Parts: sequence; structure tokens; C-alpha cells
Amino acid sequence: MEMPAPDARVMARKARIVQRLQEAVPSGGVIHDPAETRAYECDALTAYRCPPLAVVLPSSTAEVAAALKVCHEEGVPVVPRGAGTSLAGGALPTADSVILGVARMAQVLEIDTASRIIRVQTGRTNLSVTGAVEDLGFFYAPDPSSQLACAIAGNIAMNSGGAHCLKYGVTTNNLLGLTLVQMDGTVVELGGAHLDAAGLDLLALVCGSEGQLGVVTEATLRILPKPEGARPVLIGFGSSEVAGACVADIIRAGLLPVAIEFMDRPCIEATEAFAGAGYPMCEALLIVEVEGSDAEIDEQLGLITQIARGHDPVEVREAASADEAARIWLGRKSAFGAMGQLGDYMCLDGTIPVSALPTVLGRIGEMSAEYGLRVANVFHAGDGNMHPLILFDANRPGDLETCEAFGAEILKLCVEVGGCLTGEHGVGIEKRDLMSVQYAPADLEAQMRVKDVFDPRWLLNPAKVFPLGASAARRAG
Amino acid sequence: MEMPAPDARVMARKARIVQRLQEAVPSGGVIHDPAETRAYECDALTAYRCPPLAVVLPSSTAEVAAALKVCHEEGVPVVPRGAGTSLAGGALPTADSVILGVARMAQVLEIDTASRIIRVQTGRTNLSVTGAVEDLGFFYAPDPSSQLACAIAGNIAMNSGGAHCLKYGVTTNNLLGLTLVQMDGTVVELGGAHLDAAGLDLLALVCGSEGQLGVVTEATLRILPKPEGARPVLIGFGSSEVAGACVADIIRAGLLPVAIEFMDRPCIEATEAFAGAGYPMCEALLIVEVEGSDAEIDEQLGLITQIARGHDPVEVREAASADEAARIWLGRKSAFGAMGQLGDYMCLDGTIPVSALPTVLGRIGEMSAEYGLRVANVFHAGDGNMHPLILFDANRPGDLETCEAFGAEILKLCVEVGGCLTGEHGVGIEKRDLMSVQYAPADLEAQMRVKDVFDPRWLLNPAKVFPLGASAARRAG
Repeated sequence: MEMPAPDARVMARKARIVQRLQEAVPSGGVIHDPAETRAYECDALTAYRCPPLAVVLPSSTAEVAAALKVCHEEGVPVVPRGAGTSLAGGALPTADSVILGVARMAQVLEIDTASRIIRVQTGRTNLSVTGAVEDLGFFYAPDPSSQLACAIAGNIAMNSGGAHCLKYGVTTNNLLGLTLVQMDGTVVELGGAHLDAAGLDLLALVCGSEGQLGVVTEATLRILPKPEGARPVLIGFGSSEVAGACVADIIRAGLLPVAIEFMDRPCIEATEAFAGAGYPMCEALLIVEVEGSDAEIDEQLGLITQIARGHDPVEVREAASADEAARIWLGRKSAFGAMGQLGDYMCLDGTIPVSALPTVLGRIGEMSAEYGLRVANVFHAGDGNMHPLILFDANRPGDLETCEAFGAEILKLCVEVGGCLTGEHGVGIEKRDLMSVQYAPADLEAQMRVKDVFDPRWLLNPAKVFPLGASAARRAG
Repeated sequence: MEMPAPDARVMARKARIVQRLQEAVPSGGVIHDPAETRAYECDALTAYRCPPLAVVLPSSTAEVAAALKVCHEEGVPVVPRGAGTSLAGGALPTADSVILGVARMAQVLEIDTASRIIRVQTGRTNLSVTGAVEDLGFFYAPDPSSQLACAIAGNIAMNSGGAHCLKYGVTTNNLLGLTLVQMDGTVVELGGAHLDAAGLDLLALVCGSEGQLGVVTEATLRILPKPEGARPVLIGFGSSEVAGACVADIIRAGLLPVAIEFMDRPCIEATEAFAGAGYPMCEALLIVEVEGSDAEIDEQLGLITQIARGHDPVEVREAASADEAARIWLGRKSAFGAMGQLGDYMCLDGTIPVSALPTVLGRIGEMSAEYGLRVANVFHAGDGNMHPLILFDANRPGDLETCEAFGAEILKLCVEVGGCLTGEHGVGIEKRDLMSVQYAPADLEAQMRVKDVFDPRWLLNPAKVFPLGASAARRAG
């Protein structure tokens, strides 16, 4: 009797896995034709691509459990996927993996305004969570820039924030409970419709775990009453450092705006060319938004502009109408799209203590000259979550490598001043090797041992988050 | 050669451990004389007592690490202790354990108002954290009733809340980083001075872990700008269920008071007799406090009293001055002291969805009649964190047992309606056997396996949190 050729064995294995997945997910939603799986070869970090073995899009928690059980039995790695908007390769397939997407699970399961909660399936987009409760006078606070497209599943995996997390916190501060399907198909409930749970807080552990502990299919989210009103002021400055110092002074004065956004000249120029929001041409600008009643807004913006005037602003423009407010936000919200017009860029995501902003912005400027690559800064300044964009030319040999080296230097600087590698994008595949800048081997080992508990065979989104060298023995096992 | 008698061996072991601890903690602070260790035989759950083998009060993280290393090598269980105010036996010594207290570590290490953080040693009391920043216009939000005495270490261990956590969240929502000494003496830093960290969120895992994963010696805490003003309104009702329904309506209307406190008639009567705050004699009352400018307070209290008037209140009393506000709070803040005057009581700590308040309050009333024991309710209604106090007579045979059975029934009811066993007091020794009401065996196993990672020999605060049967094999190992 002849042994089948290796290729035939691989094909037979794939066929068997696909058939078992189809049986596990009777509602349909198993994609295996290479022409159709192409859409799942990458996420928003498009520089990296890898074809998956198959894609499964279950329509219920029970189907997710059945699909995971099959993969567990077959020893197939699984990459969980929300809407695929990860900027760090969090949803990127790795070799021979099954993509398990929750896109078909987008229902609202419960709204209880008296308990200030909404329970949803996690394929639901971020913005449509607010959509489900806004007529009742409530909203869901975390607001990543991708909120029109990104799914709650991905928000939980990456512990996403947004412009308004200065006041409202990130996902973990707005998540009360979840349903987790573990790699072997067992379903557990963590947290609930209350602030704290008895025993170890596995809920918070799962939030931000980048799909490495299980697949989150349902979530109970905190909703908040809509503020009475909100109004932004735009303030232009003569240098990035001065704008950074103004941010620190605003916070230090005991003011708590709902957002403080920062843009520097390269970003302002690109944004003006793209969206024509009428921004002043200056070295850096802040958009500071406050919430409350008209009187409260007047008072707070009065104090904020007074602080700003101590920093020789080139312009202070308070929105006098809803239209003007929308124009002020238009530029900021178009910034990432605008940067895309400038050519290739790498978007970083370091977070630093706000008091370190002037120093770090100054150092990035110096490093930009040293590396010979331009940097544009647009970020959530109020909570120190920076997004420097390094511009490079993918067609010029060596440019990408220089850019990567420069980016790594910036993130090391963030760690050095007491910050961290990632504020809201996650580590994914992009920053896995930088994790050893942030953590000692013993720290990484502690984290990996916790992953061992949930996923002993390291089948869930392996080869992400941890340096490849550090996780090699586990992934092989 | 003669073997020493068992007693002599025990004595010799104790002497050796004490000597090694004295060497590990050169600043002094090792207490081993039984007359002096008596103060550490219990915490605020005074029904349980157990003499420790010794007490260590180090004065630095390095000394904590050295002391833990000794205990690890000697195989001695360690019970971490903050200020010993646990209501659930979290700091209760277990047989032959060393109490490791952080009371001598109370320094402020850093204040950075621009980054809205304070870094402290965890022996510092909750209230004195605010004390260190209030002149700068900031405060630390979590405010457990014991805030004058309780330590940040204990707040982190129990994930403590307080009256104001309706708006500001509990400890985990206000904790950014910490220094953890593991059982083997290794020191790790988790989180930092920023909202989110890369990799697994071990910070949130440690928060609420009841001293079972390590000893937290330093913490970076979020501070918030002091609100411009605050004002309470007191509203009396004809029944507890109606008061509960009013709470649900206030939240449902999209109002977010900073606190909604609830007291029922037995509690009002006891409090009046004790503190004479001038409360109306009615079946239940709410204290609702809002924050902001005068105009904003006026507007919000207007809406709140309008909702309350829809529930036939027997009295609506808005504080017209700081004095009147203080009198309104006086009764609530004296409530626990007042209850002590009534005799023996057991204080529960279940949390439920706010929408379930009327049902649960009604059921507790019925059960009170069935069990023949009175119940007084005083609690944080706005976030559903209930504190029913069951009154009993410790000198009447069988009363304590009836009380415990009644308490267990109430907590089971909390779980049944979608809530949990403990809001802020922790599981400790008090509720360990009830954990199987909340969690399936697989859930408990998942939590215990995470503890295994941090403390493989189960030396840290063992025999707490988990049902004794469930943890037996591990504790023996």
C-alpha cells in the first residue's frame, strides 16, 4: 500500500477539517475557497499577509464552541477576528490557521437603562452599540477612530480607547461581563451586570488579551447618560513642546475636558489639503472639548483659554455653533485618511505620562532629523496616548528598515519615561519583539504562564504578543 | 541521641523562622510574643480569631521581598494585611501563618498632577491619599466607609468601592500601576502611570485578588479634579420597594448622581437614636447627591425631585446650606456605628442589577418574616451594591446559624437575579463556601489555576476565597 504524497495528506487534512467545521456550524459560514478567503489574509496592518486554512463565521455561541472544539481536536491554530480593523496585526492569519470571525453575531440581547447596561453579541460594531441606546438618552463611551467599522470583539481584545477616554476610560473601564468560549469549546461567563465580581477578576484579564485566552461572543457593556452639550475650542501654538506643556497645565489645573487632541504641522498641512477644515497653519494645535450645560461649558472653556493664553497661542477659536464644532472635529477625524495621501506611513501607539509630553515631543523632533524621516503627530494628548506617524517611501530601498528602527526608538523612549508600548492598538504581530523592552523575562514568563492556563497547547492566536523566541517552546509543544 | 519532642520541634522551628525574619527585616518590626501578636488575631470580622505564628511589619519593598523569601523557603503560609479592616476575614490569620503587614509603609512617593497620578506606599490610608493632593485641587475617588482607617493595600486586595463609586467606579477603575512582591521574593512592576499596558492585564488580575497572588507594596493611583460643588437631597418613601423603583427611574432617566444611598426604617430608627440627624421616620429614604456648578446642581436636583414626586414621597429635603448637607450625610455615615448599638449583626455585601432592586428588597422582607430575624438595609443603591444587615442575638442558641442560613439565601437570590456575592468586601473566609453558588466547578478551577501560576505552593492567604473542598488538594501540596 502506497503512502499518500505529503501534498495529498495536507489536502486531505484540510478537507477533513473543513467538513468537520461545516458540521459544527450548520448555519453555514465556512469559507475555504482560496479566492474567497483572500479577504481574510490581512487586517488593517496591510504590510503583512498570510492565507488562512479556512474561515468560519458562526452565528451563535454554541456554533463558536463547536468550531473551537473541532480545531482543538485537530490541533489547528485559531485566529479570532472581529471586523479586521487591527492596526497591529492582531487578526492576521498565521500559517495554517483557521480564522474564527464573529461578524455574523451582531444582535442586541438586552437593554436595561435602569442598570445602565446593554448586552450585545460581540460582532456588533462599536458605533451601533450607541445607536441602539441613543434614543433612550444613553451612549457607549469608548470611541476608537474606527468606530464605524470596528467590532466590540476587537475592542475587548485590544482594550480600545478613543478621543474621549480621557474622561471615560478605555474598554476595560466600560465592560461589566462577557461570555468566553475557551479553546476546548467550554463556555464560561465572566463578570455580570455589576461592577465587581467575587474571586479573581478574569474579566479584566481577558480584556486586552488579544484573542489569546478565548473567543468572546457576548458582552455586557456600561452605558452612560448623554451629556447635555459639548463644545470644542481649537488652540494653535508656535511649537509642539509648548502645546504639550499647555496640555500638562490644563490637567494640572484640575480641569477634566472630555478630550484633548493634538496635531502638529505635518499633520495639519496634510489634513487641510485633504479636508479643508480651515485650520490655522501653525506648528501644533490642540482641540479641547468640554461637556455639560452651556454655563458649565462657558466656565470651563474660559479657564482653558486662560491657561492657553499663558503659552502665547497663535490662535484661539471657540466653536460658536454646532456647525463650527463639526468643522473643528472634521480635520481631526480626517487626519488618518489625510496621512494616507502623503504616502507610506507607520502609525505608532505609545503611551506616556502627560507630564513627559514636552520632552518626548522634543526628542521625536530630534530623532526625526537623525533618521532623516518625517514624523507627523496626531493623538490623544490628554491621556498621553501618542500616535506618531513616521512617513517613508516603501519603494526606496532601506526606507522601511530605517522607519522600523526609528519607530522602535520612539517606543523605547516611551517606556523609558514611564510609559508603555501600546495604548489601544495592541501588540499583535507588530510589536511582539519590543515586548522585551517593556518587560523582563520573568514578567513575560508570568504572562505566558497565565496563557498556559487558558490555552495549554497555544492554539489561540499564537505567534502574537510575545517575542517569538520567548514563546517558541510553548508554540512547538 | 534523643529526638526532640514535637513541641520542642515546633518551638525550634518558630524560633528559627523568627530569627530569619529578624535578619530579613533589619529595620525591626518582627512581633512574636503572643501577648503582642494578639492584636493581629482577627480583622473587622471579629467573630473569627486565630493566633499567628508571627507578625512582620517591613518598612520597604526590599524588606517585604526578603521576608517573603524566608517564608517561601520555610513553607510558611503568609497572610498579607493592610489596616485589618476587612469585613470578610481577608486579613484573618490561618493556622501557623505569618502576618505580613504594610502598616509601616505609608509614604507618598510621587505626585504628578499633570499626569493625574499619585504614587504611594500601600500602607497609606485611603483618606490620606486625598489628603496629600487636596490642596492641589484633586482627590482620590474610591471612598469605602472605613476610609479613615483602611489602607490602600486592602483597597486593592478587595477592589473596594464606596458611596461615590456610582460615578467614579471602584478601585480597579482608579488604579494604574503597582509593585507586586511575589511569594518567592521576586518583585514585579505591573501597569504604570498610563491607562493600559501591553500584553496581559495582570494589574487588573491582582486588583481584587485578596492577597492571594502577592503583596502589593506600592501603587500608582488616578487622582481626579475636585468638583466645584456637591449637594445632597434626602427623599423619604412609604416602602422599600418604592424607594428601589425610584432609584431605577433616576438612572433610567439618564441622570448620573455621584451617589444614591438607601436606608430602610430599622436603619433610620437606629441611626436617629444614635446620631440624631433629624431624619424623617418613614419606611425607606434615599440620599441622592449631585456634583457640579450651582446651576448644574439646581437643574439635576430639579429633575431628580420631579422623578421622586412620581413615587409619592413622604418628604423631599434639599440641602440649602453646607450645614444641612453635612446633617444629611451625618446619619448615613453613622449608620454602621448605630447598627452596632442594636446588638449583633451580620453585614452582607451582594450586588445586583439596579432594575432588580424592588424585587430583591421585597423578597428580603418576606424572608425576614420566614426566618424570624430582622433586617436593616443601608447601602449604595445607585450601583446595586446592597448591604443587608441581619440582626441576631449571639447568646440565643441557634440564632447565629439561622442568621447564616438567611444570609446565604439572600446572597443566592443576588446571584439568581444576575448579581454577585460581593461588591466590595471580598470573599475572604466568610463567603468561601458560597463561591460554588456563583461559579461552576470549571470556573473555580480556572481561577485556582491562575493562582497556581503566581503561588504554586498555595502559601499566600490560603484557605480563603475558594471553598475549602475545592482548594484542599492544592493547599496540601
